Amino acid sequence: VLHSVLRQRVPDVPIVDLTHGIARQDVRAGSFALMRAAPYLAEGAVVGVVDPGVGTRRVMVAAETVGTGGGRLFFVGPDNGLLPPALDVLGGASAAVQLEDRGYWLPARGPTFAGRDVFAPAAAELARGVALGDLGNPIYPAMLVRLPPPVVSRHDDGVLECEVTWVDCFGNVQLAALARDLPPDVGWFEVGTGHSKAPVLAGRAAAFADLAAGQLGVLVDSEGRAALCLDRGHAARALGVGEGDVVSLRPIGG
Amino acid sequence: VLHSVLRQRVPDVPIVDLTHGIARQDVRAGSFALMRAAPYLAEGAVVGVVDPGVGTRRVMVAAETVGTGGGRLFFVGPDNGLLPPALDVLGGASAAVQLEDRGYWLPARGPTFAGRDVFAPAAAELARGVALGDLGNPIYPAMLVRLPPPVVSRHDDGVLECEVTWVDCFGNVQLAALARDLPPDVGWFEVGTGHSKAPVLAGRAAAFADLAAGQLGVLVDSEGRAALCLDRGHAARALGVGEGDVVSLRPIGG
Amino acid sequence: VLHSVLRQRVPDVPIVDLTHGIARQDVRAGSFALMRAAPYLAEGAVVGVVDPGVGTRRVMVAAETVGTGGGRLFFVGPDNGLLPPALDVLGGASAAVQLEDRGYWLPARGPTFAGRDVFAPAAAELARGVALGDLGNPIYPAMLVRLPPPVVSRHDDGVLECEVTWVDCFGNVQLAALARDLPPDVGWFEVGTGHSKAPVLAGRAAAFADLAAGQLGVLVDSEGRAALCLDRGHAARALGVGEGDVVSLRPIGG
Repeated sequence: VLHSVLRQRVPDVPIVDLTHGIARQDVRAGSFALMRAAPYLAEGAVVGVVDPGVGTRRVMVAAETVGTGGGRLFFVGPDNGLLPPALDVLGGASAAVQLEDRGYWLPARGPTFAGRDVFAPAAAELARGVALGDLGNPIYPAMLVRLPPPVVSRHDDGVLECEVTWVDCFGNVQLAALARDLPPDVGWFEVGTGHSKAPVLAGRAAAFADLAAGQLGVLVDSEGRAALCLDRGHAARALGVGEGDVVSLRPIGG
Repeated sequence: VLHSVLRQRVPDVPIVDLTHGIARQDVRAGSFALMRAAPYLAEGAVVGVVDPGVGTRRVMVAAETVGTGGGRLFFVGPDNGLLPPALDVLGGASAAVQLEDRGYWLPARGPTFAGRDVFAPAAAELARGVALGDLGNPIYPAMLVRLPPPVVSRHDDGVLECEVTWVDCFGNVQLAALARDLPPDVGWFEVGTGHSKAPVLAGRAAAFADLAAGQLGVLVDSEGRAALCLDRGHAARALGVGEGDVVSLRPIGG
Repeated sequence: VLHSVLRQRVPDVPIVDLTHGIARQDVRAGSFALMRAAPYLAEGAVVGVVDPGVGTRRVMVAAETVGTGGGRLFFVGPDNGLLPPALDVLGGASAAVQLEDRGYWLPARGPTFAGRDVFAPAAAELARGVALGDLGNPIYPAMLVRLPPPVVSRHDDGVLECEVTWVDCFGNVQLAALARDLPPDVGWFEVGTGHSKAPVLAGRAAAFADLAAGQLGVLVDSEGRAALCLDRGHAARALGVGEGDVVSLRPIGG
């Protein structure tokens, strides 16, 4: 239905579905997914809807930044932490407004679908060149609600603690740590999951198929982040971890 | 594959996927989904495929109505009850035909995929301006097969019985009752599910987040229908109800 | 993200998602899905990504063939068996190259997402008219890696053994056998599944709804292949078979 609303307003603008796979009401997972996609967005307007506060007095916003290639790129959604990580990846928001001008909203038959009634119409206005300031009053981009950043910390003994930011559909466990957080000359890690279970040995690998069957690996994934994986297996299930959990990587040798 | 068939015939017409989430062979659920989307459709041709009778002598039809904004809007699909509720929402069909002219059908390699071989090609013809009457012989729109309407009945004691028309992906339970069917000054309802279980207390709410954790609520949803919900919970699972079940709402106080 | 990458390079070319429903790393199932779609593809470039060897030295390729209607149609993907069955359906590849010219690749942040970094950019180049030979060095199409073809064999006693090539979302069991492999005058078959279970009787049918409730049927499906089905039931679950299993059909009478 959002597509149909957009099509009626901007029939010639291509629409891309970034994801429909965010767990219900998981604003944090949504913010990470939007952050992963951000470097591949050029220009236009992005609608982000993970919005458990829909219908309440939570603020609805739109923010402007610069997309890959230099075009104007807008993000529209609830002010609940969903948008800032993607804006940050692109250099931060240059301006933001609170969506208030009901003139472009759809007449709502009920209060629970701002994606359809507010965000999609706002994105359509922006995509067709309406100025951000026409949609509502300006707010300071720095005042947008932010969720706590994911845990990444290195201890004195070399152990790297980091949060699971994503379990993809293959079961690969993306960690908040970046490639540069991994010690370069270490070939093996002990992976701890905070359970009472013994740590699991994981080998540094460049690709899934470099791993022996059943062997846990640490690789740099397609976002440049450290990830735990099992070749042709489901690493998250094997380790018993999910998004938001914290795992530890203890370098061995090196 | 339907997209590819459409693209070859009308490359410049935008395509919107309304839903792929209808349970197998559930014509009634499909008819409600199409009805929910109808007010957001402008002009063009809609392909509806929930078609357990595919390959038999069931009739295939196309019907014309007026979309939001006044454009010509066509619905194409099996004559099994799928299309009339959406047509009704838009004011009813002004004309209908039985799809019979095999000239525009795809040569079928088997009888089980009318969506690809008949409905998509018919929709493409209509989308590019071919007259409805060129696709087959006219039939009376009033003769289109209709499924029984969903149950909504108010008893003398004020109890509202209504059918579950949709369980969305959040577990919200949409009821057939409209906002106006809910007594305006009632803050609480006893919700009965026809099981032996005791009724559950539900508070009237304007938004999901108005509810306390674990509290069942009655709100007017984004289609203007009464819905049962649990803030950040799965109301259908908590109540043990599904699409097609009948629930009762007994007003308390008022 | 692949859509966004494509949109930035060929904004005016329509994009069709053929399927996102292939089981993880199941190259064979992917090759059959692509083969089923192939007759409905006209011109353009198809990205195929079922790529468990991503990041290793496995070869990445693009191949040219002729689509339905006579246009130029390209297939891009890993050289692991995914592409040849679709190419074969369309008459075979007239040319192929190994994707090597990194000039059009996206700068990869990690090695595990060739779909985004190599295949989508290559498809965009081809869709906008760049010559196949500009993307890498030519290879012989006949040298593309091929998986073993699915089992179809007829025994002297008339029993047809054939592999399950697809279980669709309805539970219909597509077999590798074509319509012409089924004896024309046989109304009933004993279906064996290689389990210890007794064979199940299946009646020849033209459409799902021709079957009595609970009755297993053999019909020619929308790809022109033999399929086992249960009207409004899940044949694969009832038989206990899945993709890659071999079933036997023993004609009765005739």
